[in-house]
Amino acid sequence: MSDPGLTPDGPQPGSTKRTKIRRIPDRAVTSPTVRDEVLDAGLVAHVAVIDAGQPFVVPVAYARSGKEVLFHGSSASRLFKTLADGQPTCLSVTLLDGLVLARSAFESSMNYRSVMVIGSPRLLEGDEKAEALRRISDHLLPGRWSDIRPPSDQESKATIVLALSLDECSVKVRTGNPEDVPEDLVDPNFAQVWGGTVPLTESFGTAVPDEFSGGIQAPSYIETWTRS
Amino acid sequence: MSDPGLTPDGPQPGSTKRTKIRRIPDRAVTSPTVRDEVLDAGLVAHVAVIDAGQPFVVPVAYARSGKEVLFHGSSASRLFKTLADGQPTCLSVTLLDGLVLARSAFESSMNYRSVMVIGSPRLLEGDEKAEALRRISDHLLPGRWSDIRPPSDQESKATIVLALSLDECSVKVRTGNPEDVPEDLVDPNFAQVWGGTVPLTESFGTAVPDEFSGGIQAPSYIETWTRS
Repeated sequence: MSDPGLTPDGPQPGSTKRTKIRRIPDRAVTSPTVRDEVLDAGLVAHVAVIDAGQPFVVPVAYARSGKEVLFHGSSASRLFKTLADGQPTCLSVTLLDGLVLARSAFESSMNYRSVMVIGSPRLLEGDEKAEALRRISDHLLPGRWSDIRPPSDQESKATIVLALSLDECSVKVRTGNPEDVPEDLVDPNFAQVWGGTVPLTESFGTAVPDEFSGGIQAPSYIETWTRS
Repeated sequence: MSDPGLTPDGPQPGSTKRTKIRRIPDRAVTSPTVRDEVLDAGLVAHVAVIDAGQPFVVPVAYARSGKEVLFHGSSASRLFKTLADGQPTCLSVTLLDGLVLARSAFESSMNYRSVMVIGSPRLLEGDEKAEALRRISDHLLPGRWSDIRPPSDQESKATIVLALSLDECSVKVRTGNPEDVPEDLVDPNFAQVWGGTVPLTESFGTAVPDEFSGGIQAPSYIETWTRS
């Protein structure tokens, strides 16, 4: 239980001293491909903002674009204005893949894939900002952007869009069965305890039209959209 | 898009100046019941730790116990040791309930329930620590704890267990249909665009036994465990 698969560790590809994974280093992944897959599969990121010495963790919609993560918030948000000033931040994406059921509490864990990115965000403006908004929409639901009204100037002004480089980040993955203490597997009290994994999956259900969509067919990009 | 339903806002029940929700205050919820339901339904929390001015956001297993949230990590973790010293932290739990598809990018959003708790954690020891470990296990999978070997003294020493009061926290909920700009609903370019929601659900799949579970029936608490 001391590592439920989910413990605070320093952040590895783009590993620096600050982001080197020290705890259970065999869970550290150095493949940028895995990093990108995790970022591309997540729906929400959690971003840190420090305000007067107090950290806040806020959920945000996001998208990966090459070697950056893009995310946005309201221009009226005190915390987001702080980020727009380039204050150091951390953005984490965690995908839970299942429960890992060992014969001991300590070895019980979770299967997961996680990415932690640290750095100072870059404020996007003009064409870069517009493109970032499109990418965030595409990340959530590919195909939607071309159907809907793009942001007006006023709406765009009400939005802060930030980019955070993936240069300094860590990736951790846990997969597979529990790693029980050998003694537990032969202990008469625990050898007959079922061990293994319970997979956890996130899925989209059937689209629900609002009152203005009567008679309009839901577009195929909604019906066919799945994530892994 | 400036509020994808998920933007950084100051944290409300137990609302203080620091945790008052200013942005889209109609999403703020003051019911402790809702707060507790969200905390009880989540599987993972994201916790902030500041180290040398740099915030980190780490995923943790957790459980609610009355008016506190309990979470744990490794005694070998630099970041967790910092938290054990009582440094201010923030713990957030976000449940994504679906995509909200409006006729404009700006009004497109997500349905979600989220809780953000801030404060300085309290280090648990002795019986409180042991009880907290049981509660975290029960949170992930009720019934499991009584089957498995509890932590040894050495395993317990390797684990830091913390409690964070719910006195200062905020709860935000977004439900229902998109709130489109009225003009978009009659605009010939967008009035025929399908709008509504796409629900998102997380579910456990069939338990997968490891190589030591041959012939052992998976316990009923696994097969019947669902979350909402």
